[in-house]
Amino acid sequence: MGFFSKDIKTMDDLFVHTLRDIYYAEKQILQALPDMIEKAHDPQLKQGFQTHLTETKNHVARLERVFQMHGKEPSGIDCPAIDGIIEEADEVAGEVADKTVLDAALIAAAQAVEHYEITRYGTLIAWAKQLGRSDCASVLQQNLDEEKATDKKLTALAESKVNRQAA
Amino acid sequence: MGFFSKDIKTMDDLFVHTLRDIYYAEKQILQALPDMIEKAHDPQLKQGFQTHLTETKNHVARLERVFQMHGKEPSGIDCPAIDGIIEEADEVAGEVADKTVLDAALIAAAQAVEHYEITRYGTLIAWAKQLGRSDCASVLQQNLDEEKATDKKLTALAESKVNRQAA
Repeated sequence: MGFFSKDIKTMDDLFVHTLRDIYYAEKQILQALPDMIEKAHDPQLKQGFQTHLTETKNHVARLERVFQMHGKEPSGIDCPAIDGIIEEADEVAGEVADKTVLDAALIAAAQAVEHYEITRYGTLIAWAKQLGRSDCASVLQQNLDEEKATDKKLTALAESKVNRQAA
Repeated sequence: MGFFSKDIKTMDDLFVHTLRDIYYAEKQILQALPDMIEKAHDPQLKQGFQTHLTETKNHVARLERVFQMHGKEPSGIDCPAIDGIIEEADEVAGEVADKTVLDAALIAAAQAVEHYEITRYGTLIAWAKQLGRSDCASVLQQNLDEEKATDKKLTALAESKVNRQAA
C-alpha cells in the first residue's frame, strides 16, 4: 500500500493490513533466528532459539490459514518496526566481546522481538473478535500463547542463569 | 558506539548501552506524541495521549537520575527499533481514511511503542539487580509501572469503545 494513498478505509482493511505486517515480521524472524542460534553460547539458550524456530514456522503456516479463512491471498508488507528491532539486535550483538554478556544481550533482543509480536497479535485478536471473526481470533490466539510462553522462558533463563554468569 | 568495535565488554557496559537506547527512545516518543494527540479523534484517547506526554517527560527525567546514580553522563544512542516502530505508526496513520478506524490504528501503534518500552525496562531492571544496583532498579521500575498502566488503559479504551465504533 502506498504512502498517503488512504488505502485503509474500513476496520477490515486495517485488520488485513496488520495481518500482512505480522506475516512479514514472522518471515523476517525466521531468517534472523539461525544467526541467533549460532551466536548463542549457553546450550539451553541455543536449544530455546531452535525450538522457537520450529514454532515460528508454525506461526507462518497459521497466518496463511487466517488469510485463507478471511478470503485473502497471503502476502506481506514492509514492517519497519521488525526491521528496526532486528537491525538493533545485530548491532548490539556485534559490539559484545564476552560470550556470557552476549547471551544476555541475545535474550534481551529476542524479548524485544517477542514483545512486538505479543502486541500485534493482541491487537489482531481484539479486531478479529470485533469483526465477528472469532474463528480467525482463535487461530491467532495460538500464536500469541506461544510468543508469551517464549518470552516467559527467556525471562526465566536470564534470571536463573545467564545474567548471573554475565555479571 | 561503533559497529563491530566490541565496545561492550562487561554486563555493566551492556546496562549503560541499553540505558542509552531507552533514553533515546523516550526522547523520540516525546517528539512523536504531539502528532498522535493531534490525529486522535476520540476525546478520551486524545486526553490519554496528553497524560502520557506528561508521564514521558518524567520518564526522561528519571532516566537522567539513573545515569547520574550510575556515574554516567546522560546520553542517547541511535535506536533503530523505536525509529522503525514510530515510522510504521506514521505510515499506517497516513493510510487510514476513516476517523474512527484511525483511532483504532493509533491505539495499536501506541501499544507497539509501550511494549517496546516494557521489554527494555524489564531487561534493565533485571540487569540492575544483578549488578547490585537495586537503587537504579527501583527508579526504572516506576517507569515500567507507568508504561504497563498506559498499555492496559489503551486496551480498555480499544475494547470498550474505539474498536466498536470503528468496526
